[in-house]
Amino acid sequence: MELSLFNILDLLGTVAFAISGALAAMNRKLDLFGIFIIAFVTSIGGGTLRDILIGATPTWMDNTIYIYFIGVVTVLAIIFRNKINYLKTSLFLFDTIGLGVFTITGVEIGLQNGLDPIICITLGAMTGTFGGVLRDILVAEIPVIFRKEIYATASLTGGLAFILLNELGVNTDVIYVVTSLIIISIRLIVVKYRISLPNFDLAPVEKK
Amino acid sequence: MELSLFNILDLLGTVAFAISGALAAMNRKLDLFGIFIIAFVTSIGGGTLRDILIGATPTWMDNTIYIYFIGVVTVLAIIFRNKINYLKTSLFLFDTIGLGVFTITGVEIGLQNGLDPIICITLGAMTGTFGGVLRDILVAEIPVIFRKEIYATASLTGGLAFILLNELGVNTDVIYVVTSLIIISIRLIVVKYRISLPNFDLAPVEKK
Amino acid sequence: MELSLFNILDLLGTVAFAISGALAAMNRKLDLFGIFIIAFVTSIGGGTLRDILIGATPTWMDNTIYIYFIGVVTVLAIIFRNKINYLKTSLFLFDTIGLGVFTITGVEIGLQNGLDPIICITLGAMTGTFGGVLRDILVAEIPVIFRKEIYATASLTGGLAFILLNELGVNTDVIYVVTSLIIISIRLIVVKYRISLPNFDLAPVEKK
Repeated sequence: MELSLFNILDLLGTVAFAISGALAAMNRKLDLFGIFIIAFVTSIGGGTLRDILIGATPTWMDNTIYIYFIGVVTVLAIIFRNKINYLKTSLFLFDTIGLGVFTITGVEIGLQNGLDPIICITLGAMTGTFGGVLRDILVAEIPVIFRKEIYATASLTGGLAFILLNELGVNTDVIYVVTSLIIISIRLIVVKYRISLPNFDLAPVEKK
Repeated sequence: MELSLFNILDLLGTVAFAISGALAAMNRKLDLFGIFIIAFVTSIGGGTLRDILIGATPTWMDNTIYIYFIGVVTVLAIIFRNKINYLKTSLFLFDTIGLGVFTITGVEIGLQNGLDPIICITLGAMTGTFGGVLRDILVAEIPVIFRKEIYATASLTGGLAFILLNELGVNTDVIYVVTSLIIISIRLIVVKYRISLPNFDLAPVEKK
Repeated sequence: MELSLFNILDLLGTVAFAISGALAAMNRKLDLFGIFIIAFVTSIGGGTLRDILIGATPTWMDNTIYIYFIGVVTVLAIIFRNKINYLKTSLFLFDTIGLGVFTITGVEIGLQNGLDPIICITLGAMTGTFGGVLRDILVAEIPVIFRKEIYATASLTGGLAFILLNELGVNTDVIYVVTSLIIISIRLIVVKYRISLPNFDLAPVEKK
């Protein structure tokens, strides 16, 4: 296939989420195939939901490069498992990269299908977050989307920026890069400075 | 869009499930976006499953009114959160309204696609119950469908009534209203009089 | 409908998974409809995921025989519930049969849609395992796919054998039977001799 920036971002998100899935599975001490399965589901989850909603064939089914990338990433994650003391930071970083670029692919696919801007932003948020939600459900963590880290908000803000820049006629490749970086930056800044959305002065969610 | 009774019922179910989702999220003390996400997923879940199974584009993707309604409902639920002592009853009522009208939309869409009556009834039950199941999974409750309240049974009974009245040639709008009310009434009566299906004298499901 | 070996295997997998779902639901002491719902979801889950990914209408929606079979199986499981002391073995056996035949239907559908062999194997594994994963999530067990029993590995090995035999030009019906038996045999042997995949000397997953 010829690689457009869109394809590259889609692959980047796939790889980033695969790493986050493999790390989460290692953390849960799953066996070899358990690790591969979580990596696979995390990395294809968001894009598959996006493509099913839009009535298209999931990208990974038409192009084997996704499966090979996920396989290689899983093996690398296993080889480098001794660096596991950095795991939480690594998992957070790769999850954030995946969120940023997958959100963009969701918004873009929505626009290509002539959907209303607010639907495109929603589709972007679903694409960006669904893989991580599946991962967290499968390893029995509280889904990242419900934690204090302003996850969906970063995605929705980036999606909004995408739509605004698109209305202004900015070059698509520039939009991709800028809005991905907006999402990633928001999440990094928010976590660094411990900013959180109001929860109306109610007690925090207890770990189940 | 021109609003048929079908569209109105679909919107009514969307709003009712959005309220039930927002209430459940408030009860779990999620933050602002957590509340919105649960409201959104609960309200679109059943219809999205219905449309994907039938090979159609989900209704909310073609029509932004759904997302705006869900947004407004979420804000209202937050504003009126101090009435939270009535929460369990409110959640039960809105959940029941959503179950009633969404079941009907599932049966109707099945008939429009020429499916066998028993498949239509099944599709109705999936449409009516899926949003609530997603909501309960996301807030880590035992899914409502497995509680003692005769949930799926109400939906299946209403679906059966729909098919029978349709065979008799009753006006479609009349069928919509009558069968929705059948489902809602069954659930209200069953809960009021604590009727439950046999579980073969085994111990009740313990809360996990 | 005229029954090809493919249809027969698809029905066999449906029945086997329905039994496994009904047994799991009985074990969780769910009521009548809870049992039926788990049986239904377990038996149609894998095939529905397969058909949605491929853009086709789920088989059970076009053919009522699936729903009737599931209903009969549920009733039988309830009638014979007193044999429940054999439950773990029965559940394991029916789950394994379902895994074996559903994997084959996934690989076959992938080939019919011109997908790459490695995608076909993946689709086979998703078809074979998804119903059981849904069942285990709904009854709040650790998904079978993450237990020590080499579940996905058996499916992937059978899928690989399918592709190889297909390349060699072996008769399709022979391939179906041989590869189903390969999957079932692997799982039986592995469980009997307590073989497990490496998990890198980390502690086992604790029950949540």
